[in-house]
Amino acid sequence: MAKKVAVIMGSDSDLPVVKAAVEKLKHFGIPTEVHVMSAHRTPDAAAAFSKQAASAGFGVIIAAAGKAAHLGGVLAAHTTLPVIGIPIRSSELDGLDALLSTVQMPPGIPVATVGINGAANAAILAAQMLALSDPALADKLAEMKADMAAGVAKKDAAIQEMVNSL
Amino acid sequence: MAKKVAVIMGSDSDLPVVKAAVEKLKHFGIPTEVHVMSAHRTPDAAAAFSKQAASAGFGVIIAAAGKAAHLGGVLAAHTTLPVIGIPIRSSELDGLDALLSTVQMPPGIPVATVGINGAANAAILAAQMLALSDPALADKLAEMKADMAAGVAKKDAAIQEMVNSL
Amino acid sequence: MAKKVAVIMGSDSDLPVVKAAVEKLKHFGIPTEVHVMSAHRTPDAAAAFSKQAASAGFGVIIAAAGKAAHLGGVLAAHTTLPVIGIPIRSSELDGLDALLSTVQMPPGIPVATVGINGAANAAILAAQMLALSDPALADKLAEMKADMAAGVAKKDAAIQEMVNSL
Amino acid sequence: MAKKVAVIMGSDSDLPVVKAAVEKLKHFGIPTEVHVMSAHRTPDAAAAFSKQAASAGFGVIIAAAGKAAHLGGVLAAHTTLPVIGIPIRSSELDGLDALLSTVQMPPGIPVATVGINGAANAAILAAQMLALSDPALADKLAEMKADMAAGVAKKDAAIQEMVNSL
Amino acid sequence: MAKKVAVIMGSDSDLPVVKAAVEKLKHFGIPTEVHVMSAHRTPDAAAAFSKQAASAGFGVIIAAAGKAAHLGGVLAAHTTLPVIGIPIRSSELDGLDALLSTVQMPPGIPVATVGINGAANAAILAAQMLALSDPALADKLAEMKADMAAGVAKKDAAIQEMVNSL
Amino acid sequence: MAKKVAVIMGSDSDLPVVKAAVEKLKHFGIPTEVHVMSAHRTPDAAAAFSKQAASAGFGVIIAAAGKAAHLGGVLAAHTTLPVIGIPIRSSELDGLDALLSTVQMPPGIPVATVGINGAANAAILAAQMLALSDPALADKLAEMKADMAAGVAKKDAAIQEMVNSL
Amino acid sequence: MAKKVAVIMGSDSDLPVVKAAVEKLKHFGIPTEVHVMSAHRTPDAAAAFSKQAASAGFGVIIAAAGKAAHLGGVLAAHTTLPVIGIPIRSSELDGLDALLSTVQMPPGIPVATVGINGAANAAILAAQMLALSDPALADKLAEMKADMAAGVAKKDAAIQEMVNSL
Amino acid sequence: MAKKVAVIMGSDSDLPVVKAAVEKLKHFGIPTEVHVMSAHRTPDAAAAFSKQAASAGFGVIIAAAGKAAHLGGVLAAHTTLPVIGIPIRSSELDGLDALLSTVQMPPGIPVATVGINGAANAAILAAQMLALSDPALADKLAEMKADMAAGVAKKDAAIQEMVNSL
Repeated sequence: MAKKVAVIMGSDSDLPVVKAAVEKLKHFGIPTEVHVMSAHRTPDAAAAFSKQAASAGFGVIIAAAGKAAHLGGVLAAHTTLPVIGIPIRSSELDGLDALLSTVQMPPGIPVATVGINGAANAAILAAQMLALSDPALADKLAEMKADMAAGVAKKDAAIQEMVNSL
Repeated sequence: MAKKVAVIMGSDSDLPVVKAAVEKLKHFGIPTEVHVMSAHRTPDAAAAFSKQAASAGFGVIIAAAGKAAHLGGVLAAHTTLPVIGIPIRSSELDGLDALLSTVQMPPGIPVATVGINGAANAAILAAQMLALSDPALADKLAEMKADMAAGVAKKDAAIQEMVNSL
Repeated sequence: MAKKVAVIMGSDSDLPVVKAAVEKLKHFGIPTEVHVMSAHRTPDAAAAFSKQAASAGFGVIIAAAGKAAHLGGVLAAHTTLPVIGIPIRSSELDGLDALLSTVQMPPGIPVATVGINGAANAAILAAQMLALSDPALADKLAEMKADMAAGVAKKDAAIQEMVNSL
Repeated sequence: MAKKVAVIMGSDSDLPVVKAAVEKLKHFGIPTEVHVMSAHRTPDAAAAFSKQAASAGFGVIIAAAGKAAHLGGVLAAHTTLPVIGIPIRSSELDGLDALLSTVQMPPGIPVATVGINGAANAAILAAQMLALSDPALADKLAEMKADMAAGVAKKDAAIQEMVNSL
Repeated sequence: MAKKVAVIMGSDSDLPVVKAAVEKLKHFGIPTEVHVMSAHRTPDAAAAFSKQAASAGFGVIIAAAGKAAHLGGVLAAHTTLPVIGIPIRSSELDGLDALLSTVQMPPGIPVATVGINGAANAAILAAQMLALSDPALADKLAEMKADMAAGVAKKDAAIQEMVNSL
Repeated sequence: MAKKVAVIMGSDSDLPVVKAAVEKLKHFGIPTEVHVMSAHRTPDAAAAFSKQAASAGFGVIIAAAGKAAHLGGVLAAHTTLPVIGIPIRSSELDGLDALLSTVQMPPGIPVATVGINGAANAAILAAQMLALSDPALADKLAEMKADMAAGVAKKDAAIQEMVNSL
Repeated sequence: MAKKVAVIMGSDSDLPVVKAAVEKLKHFGIPTEVHVMSAHRTPDAAAAFSKQAASAGFGVIIAAAGKAAHLGGVLAAHTTLPVIGIPIRSSELDGLDALLSTVQMPPGIPVATVGINGAANAAILAAQMLALSDPALADKLAEMKADMAAGVAKKDAAIQEMVNSL
Repeated sequence: MAKKVAVIMGSDSDLPVVKAAVEKLKHFGIPTEVHVMSAHRTPDAAAAFSKQAASAGFGVIIAAAGKAAHLGGVLAAHTTLPVIGIPIRSSELDGLDALLSTVQMPPGIPVATVGINGAANAAILAAQMLALSDPALADKLAEMKADMAAGVAKKDAAIQEMVNSL
């Protein structure tokens, strides 16, 4: 059975950013479960979720959090599944705090970090991991890549017009 | 009975910095327990310690960690005792990562953060908290403050000589 | 008698941020006094306040300031009470200046620093300190923590709906 | 047949850092190929390698580079395999340049970034990805996690002695 | 025949910034070609363009990209023409990521970097390069410089009035 | 005769910030001359102005510039009058570029730097310098200081009301 | 009578940096007094010194401090003399903390900030201020400037030899 | 006649870094002149040099400076030749100050900035500019590029051995 992806956000205020991940996972047809869980406000729930994630059929956990973003690290501490961290930009420090809090993990417990607010990329990365044993999903990723290239080529063609009107 | 202070470090490699906190707490005569516990490598031990800390007679928890320093936040998530965070400088990023990971906590779960590698100040801060209900300890803090001022005054007197030899 | 908390802000323009601390202290039923005092414009008033704070019944001082935020350090210089610093974000440098000016105190004079604009956390930290000798306040803190967890759990339940509407 | 991991470094001067990844992969028994390839000095070789990596039996590509670290992004541009980026610290800017150049990828082409010089974590992350379809490898990861926890517990026990000698 | 300048942007969303370069090049009468090409989404097109640029009559390539801005480096990898990089500011990190990703190139493959969003300067720099073998263009640059100085002098005269109305 | 202050801005777009300096100098009754001069666009005019400033009766030069803010340094290179630098915040990098470009002068040529956009402080600093030989001006500075303190004290009194209405 | 310069350092460990200021002031023949005083450890001494500085014959105060460098601001709060701040680099954060803590003063209380560890420039700046009413000192500054230029010209001549031996 | 390259450094202490540029220019057979000139200590010499550079046969000016690195900007202000800036790393701030002071030029006066301490790249960039009208130099650049690629390929072959010995 296809492995699921869990998308955990530290606060429901992160949803406007995180929804790009959910939409992308839906686009790939990957079964997805979304939760609000906080490393600091519901640490036991977060730990419990992470501990049972593998046996519950999850293959990848995506964690989105801002400021002193510990969510990815806390989830990674309780599982050997790959954990992807999305640093969320908050109104101070431009997201640098969340980036450093997510990526600078100590040896032994990695968090696969994507760019600040990089929710779509987190979903694609999760799909790339699952595609290692799912050729149909690998095909979808290749197709997406071709579509992106075609989209850029189309814009390249269109830019002449835009430029001429400068 | 006097409340204890717990000094938790994320790695025993932090000891050269953290020992300044332990020495200062000993100087104040505060009963102290020191542990190596990791937010990421022994998350259950850290959570369990924090949950029972108040009932075990601790009044303050000091947490020292580097890089994506989650230890203070993880301990704070499981207790209502005040948690003091010491961001440890590692070889990259001059400690800025540890500082931001420690101080930028979300609403509801504060970590009282001292400066990078500020172990002595963490101990003094713990003593200040305990002194709120321990007049003898408050006296020791006042004495330390007077000693510091006297030390600076002494150096001020000595500087003339040093300067004349320039 | 219950110890009071002083909330000092460097400028009345800090009130929109600082009021979250005042409200939270009121919520805990902690007697609170609020002042506008400047480390640079009314240094003598600030020093005088700090010197008499302990004998006037204060247990904790909260200091909020922006830019080269010296207020916490200046107050801490004149008391052995714990001083909590709130770095206020101003229009330049995203609050990094206030954070570093508040947290990087020299050995001997700690300021317990919370996150940029972290006024609510400053109040909770003050409550945690006072709760060391006030079991009823400790119960309120535990209750607040349970409420936060319940709030997150409720949002976790609600998120399914939000996600389905994506 | 077990999928291979490719470890690509931008310069052989990165080997002192990168070898921690190679050693860890060997420890897990994962077939590994190591290359020196540069996004800027041998861009065609890098692109050619990445294009054929999936069909050549690779499951994950690890890319290590410093300064304006483009290697991870360039490899990710030519494959749908997951690409893990290790930002290498150089003598200027403490590795912040390499971190931002690696992690801040545009939508569509993620690079799973680990901490600065985080070579061991890159290997563990690769193993976590491959373990999704390799239960024996998953067991090895769980074992490593247990070993780490035991190691910390042992140091926790030992710290008492060290502390008493302060 | 006069050499052309290529202006390549990583995304058509960069056009509002990049158009200042196109306009300036038109102002100098330099034949200009504008493209949308992505280091990550159309890497082969970018490489192919760069490889043939010299023989196709281009003298300078201007590359504009944001975030982990690899475009300048990727183009520079495939040509010995001078490549000018414009770091584009995106909503996070104020453009510091794009600046470091563009300027911190390894030895052997320089990118001539201008300031964040410095599109006009990129065009002027390209003109300065081409003017080395085009005296008429050198005259236009000298004229532009004189015009700028005259413009400042005019504003200097006007400022008195503005100041008096303060 | 009283020495004049020159206020030089690199661009007339800096006027909204710089006018606070002009107003403050007028408030002190200091004869002031305002100019738009650019270190890069009118370097000869800037150098010529600075060279003759002392003999033309100026005592202090205030220089305001943004981005790679060289204006203060360029003026300081041609005079032994004290030069005060105001780093102007532009839309990128929050003014950090202008601050570092202004303050980090090499040995021998200081620029007295005030905070980002700190125009009022630049004027006060100029007044402080001139007051060294102008007792009436010193009195005005003392008066301003007393007024500021009174203003803060008034706000301190008013804050109780504001706080009660929270 | 010639006005004196006070050089105040926050700790005698700052002397290796600060002595360049003292030496330069001696070189100019400016009467100089050197003190160790701490904004945090001897705040009353620092305030008292600053309050009486003008009447005691000082014209300028130089303050050197590291980390959360409050010394310049604290001294400036108690005087209308110009205060020059030297941010001292400590082992963390490369001096950025001291720079921001010194330069980002609120409106009304400027600190004339020189570069990190810029002790010589602080002395020159003080001399420039005093030279406003001391033509002999102005001559010495002009002479120093000419000497510097001559020194550079000499090195320019010497560099040919050095370069030829490359 | 072949155009010359001028290499100007702000201080002879920059020579250990800058010599890589001189050596690389010699390698290309480009006539080179090296000078020590300071934007702040010998501003007139620097301006005079820049003004006559084009007519004296120079095609490109390379400027190397640290801290508030104004040298590139000052030289660019007086010429329409392309000016390449090398930000020199000094002991504070890791070179970030020099980078921002060099690259963040205002519209109209670009400085083509290479990476911190990127002297070799500055020389290559100068060669690329001159090669626009010098086919033999273009051939040398292509050869250097091929040599670099061959060097990497050789190291790629050698790495297997190194890795096996881990």
